[in-house]
Amino acid sequence: MLESRIRHTGLRSRVVTAEEAQQWIQDGMTIGVSGFTKSGDAKAVLQALVNRVRETGEQLSINLYSGASLGETDALLAMHHVVARRLPYQSDSVLRKQINLGGVGYTDQHLSHTAELIRSGYLGEIDLAIIEATCITEDGGIVPTTSVGNSPIFVEKAKRVIVEINETIPEAFEGVHDIYQPESRPNRSPIPITQVRDRIGTTYIPCDPDKIVGIVFTRLQDTPSNIVEPDAETERMAGYILDFLSHEVRYGRLPQNLAPLQSGVGSVSNAVLSGLATAPFENLEIYTEVMQDAVFELFDAGKVSFASACSFSLSKRMVERVTSSISQYKDKMILRPQEISNHPEVVRRLGVIAMNTALEVDIYGNVNSTHVSGTRMMNGIGGSGDFARNAGLTIFVTKSVAKDGRISSVVPFVTHVDHTEHDVDVLVTEQGIADLRGLTPRERAKAIIQNLAHPCYRDELLDYFKRASARGGHTPHLLEEALSWHQRFAETGDMRKAQPQLVHEHAL
Amino acid sequence: MLESRIRHTGLRSRVVTAEEAQQWIQDGMTIGVSGFTKSGDAKAVLQALVNRVRETGEQLSINLYSGASLGETDALLAMHHVVARRLPYQSDSVLRKQINLGGVGYTDQHLSHTAELIRSGYLGEIDLAIIEATCITEDGGIVPTTSVGNSPIFVEKAKRVIVEINETIPEAFEGVHDIYQPESRPNRSPIPITQVRDRIGTTYIPCDPDKIVGIVFTRLQDTPSNIVEPDAETERMAGYILDFLSHEVRYGRLPQNLAPLQSGVGSVSNAVLSGLATAPFENLEIYTEVMQDAVFELFDAGKVSFASACSFSLSKRMVERVTSSISQYKDKMILRPQEISNHPEVVRRLGVIAMNTALEVDIYGNVNSTHVSGTRMMNGIGGSGDFARNAGLTIFVTKSVAKDGRISSVVPFVTHVDHTEHDVDVLVTEQGIADLRGLTPRERAKAIIQNLAHPCYRDELLDYFKRASARGGHTPHLLEEALSWHQRFAETGDMRKAQPQLVHEHAL
Repeated sequence: MLESRIRHTGLRSRVVTAEEAQQWIQDGMTIGVSGFTKSGDAKAVLQALVNRVRETGEQLSINLYSGASLGETDALLAMHHVVARRLPYQSDSVLRKQINLGGVGYTDQHLSHTAELIRSGYLGEIDLAIIEATCITEDGGIVPTTSVGNSPIFVEKAKRVIVEINETIPEAFEGVHDIYQPESRPNRSPIPITQVRDRIGTTYIPCDPDKIVGIVFTRLQDTPSNIVEPDAETERMAGYILDFLSHEVRYGRLPQNLAPLQSGVGSVSNAVLSGLATAPFENLEIYTEVMQDAVFELFDAGKVSFASACSFSLSKRMVERVTSSISQYKDKMILRPQEISNHPEVVRRLGVIAMNTALEVDIYGNVNSTHVSGTRMMNGIGGSGDFARNAGLTIFVTKSVAKDGRISSVVPFVTHVDHTEHDVDVLVTEQGIADLRGLTPRERAKAIIQNLAHPCYRDELLDYFKRASARGGHTPHLLEEALSWHQRFAETGDMRKAQPQLVHEHAL
Repeated sequence: MLESRIRHTGLRSRVVTAEEAQQWIQDGMTIGVSGFTKSGDAKAVLQALVNRVRETGEQLSINLYSGASLGETDALLAMHHVVARRLPYQSDSVLRKQINLGGVGYTDQHLSHTAELIRSGYLGEIDLAIIEATCITEDGGIVPTTSVGNSPIFVEKAKRVIVEINETIPEAFEGVHDIYQPESRPNRSPIPITQVRDRIGTTYIPCDPDKIVGIVFTRLQDTPSNIVEPDAETERMAGYILDFLSHEVRYGRLPQNLAPLQSGVGSVSNAVLSGLATAPFENLEIYTEVMQDAVFELFDAGKVSFASACSFSLSKRMVERVTSSISQYKDKMILRPQEISNHPEVVRRLGVIAMNTALEVDIYGNVNSTHVSGTRMMNGIGGSGDFARNAGLTIFVTKSVAKDGRISSVVPFVTHVDHTEHDVDVLVTEQGIADLRGLTPRERAKAIIQNLAHPCYRDELLDYFKRASARGGHTPHLLEEALSWHQRFAETGDMRKAQPQLVHEHAL
């Protein structure tokens, strides 16, 4: 096992336990770890560190940079207050709570940007990288597991590297990855991807063997992703999108096999992908950030010919299936660094169709993806901005209401903007679809209110828009009322007016 | 003259007057015209159309697409209600007024996006293109004048083309331009620019001669740009930026000749560029949207070795100087289509340093570039988003107050977001500079309030931030107060509190 998992003979002597390896971690360090949407994350050493802190009561805190969210390790680290600073994405409820209390400093970044910022020296030095691996090559190259994320830039820039070889990952994973990093400026070449299936790099992360200070063997598995099953509403939303895509094909604006698809994590995206299994499109391609269950189902259905991503995000059932039969998918997929899977250059060149989830949208098409009531962070912008700004077609989805109708997802004014009106082509709720391409703000408002808002909020939105328009302006607003829906929710727990008649008269 | 200006012999018979050419324009047409920041805009035929409407009282309205703002033609068309729909940018006060009244439908777009949207068929068909030219080549190729803008995509997609040959532009302008258009998807190649000076296309816009229905000779000149002279405050802001750049060089994060510079139109940008004349940087390069006066001054000072843009934006004095001596600048500059000058792919590859102007910023670093009080459109987002999102270093500048202190440009919550917190590295006012790279929202708020806000607003901002933070949240806000500064201005004409003591007690 040792021989095949560590092919560089000189490195075989550096095998240590996780307990030994965690001792290299010191207070104040900046550590870059593998891991993206709970896949392929460094687990053993960080969990051993948590044990040390738990047992000794030591005050220790680190700056933790990753690809995106880690699995349960994010929760463990947060529970024991080991993280001072975290970037570029997270989705754990314990960690989120600390971020919102101001206890953990969180920098929410476009996921294609982090590597660039590290390369430019803007985020300081990386003291240590901890990278989960399938194996180490003859030259010290690190073969990742179920994600690539930001691991290549961490390995390149870190002073020292710890490798966690995960024995539950079959050695057949070697060959899945394609590692390419843009050169430092000012002499950078174009990224030579012109087709989803283009391989442009190596199957391993190049690494100077001298930097590898320890190798830990582990059998800790990825935390599986929770797949929210589609319901009647998500099915309907998926239907609108599939109809819309058919319409675009009919009018010659998309080819019969569409364009490479990106879909964010979420039940609607999953429902759209599932819907493609029976839709009249063939030879589909995926150019996305994470490969969810549905992508593998589409492989099996013969609908998708190739998929490129930077990570898996799979249910427990699908993890087992994919892990055990990776060989049969290997020639149909690539895992790339997130800088490449999300790169504006490639996204725009390929004309990706981007589908992502909004928390709320306003009547002019601005999208809030991250902040509840403009204040409390949910997860982070993730890759949605990398794709939305540069895609050939940008779609955002959200149910028209949340919390049994007490929250409208269509509001006069979003409390936080992650995607501006300039970056949103199509919006979808279970009420319908609004094609905003080329429309003016006033035209967008009419389409959004009419097609997307829930009936119990539609009249009030229309009333707001009409009264605002009467005052004039390119993007008419009544600033004194713009955020009143959110205030009402904060006060009463319901965006709906308790006594619509009375309040309405008052407003007039 | 005819021979050298129209080298395609078959086209020489198509010379018509502007009065004749305007007759091809019919009600409801979509027309794509040359012109960007009042440079190289189609003037003769549109002005003849205005005369027709004025004389006949005819009801005629067109959809007018351009590169960016036209010169006085935008005002003339607006005054005579000839434009129903306008995109992607404007800066004329008469037109702006109609846009804000809802009379003209205006779609504000990222300037690198418009060509892409037309190519995809999202903006409908182009009935007619009207392109100002220096000359027509043997094959019917159109050599632009002082801008390229969106002319290549208009010529490609338009059913018919009218060329306006401007005799005030010396024939020596031929060779200045570099026309390259990305292929239609799905088979698109990388844009092969790796250095600012790379020439990748033709010196003319290719055009099927059969599409050219008329050629008009004109001597109408570009409307000169109004240069706002630097004052003590803009000089100070330029100083902060130059010091900051020196600091980045010292820490090895920028090379001695910096990175290619982009600067939006505005007095601070001009002051920064002027400041470079005496700064210790050599062999500077410019990769920008518009070349302002200062770029030519830097050529003359031997500081800038090459500049790439899609348009001029010059004062009357500088227009004359550059026009008469274009030959001496020709080997140091390129005018490209705006899709290329602003392309995310190239901007990110080159690691451009982007400097643009904000209307207002909030305490977390979100930038409003377009909407006064979130409602009234000023000009448009222009290329600021193309650069800000993708640059190696993104700087926004604004004076800390406007209207003699009655408006604070640093507010709790911006009324419109054009650039999100994720896209802003550095903010500058005459009060100081805030380096936001890698900071969390709470850290950003402290830096912005401390370094950028005007002293007469600083305490109140800090008070807002402290009270919001006490309630918690990643990006703390008090929604009931977030827009109160703008409301106060709407009510009293002043964002400052009339009776700070009293109001403060009430707020507590």
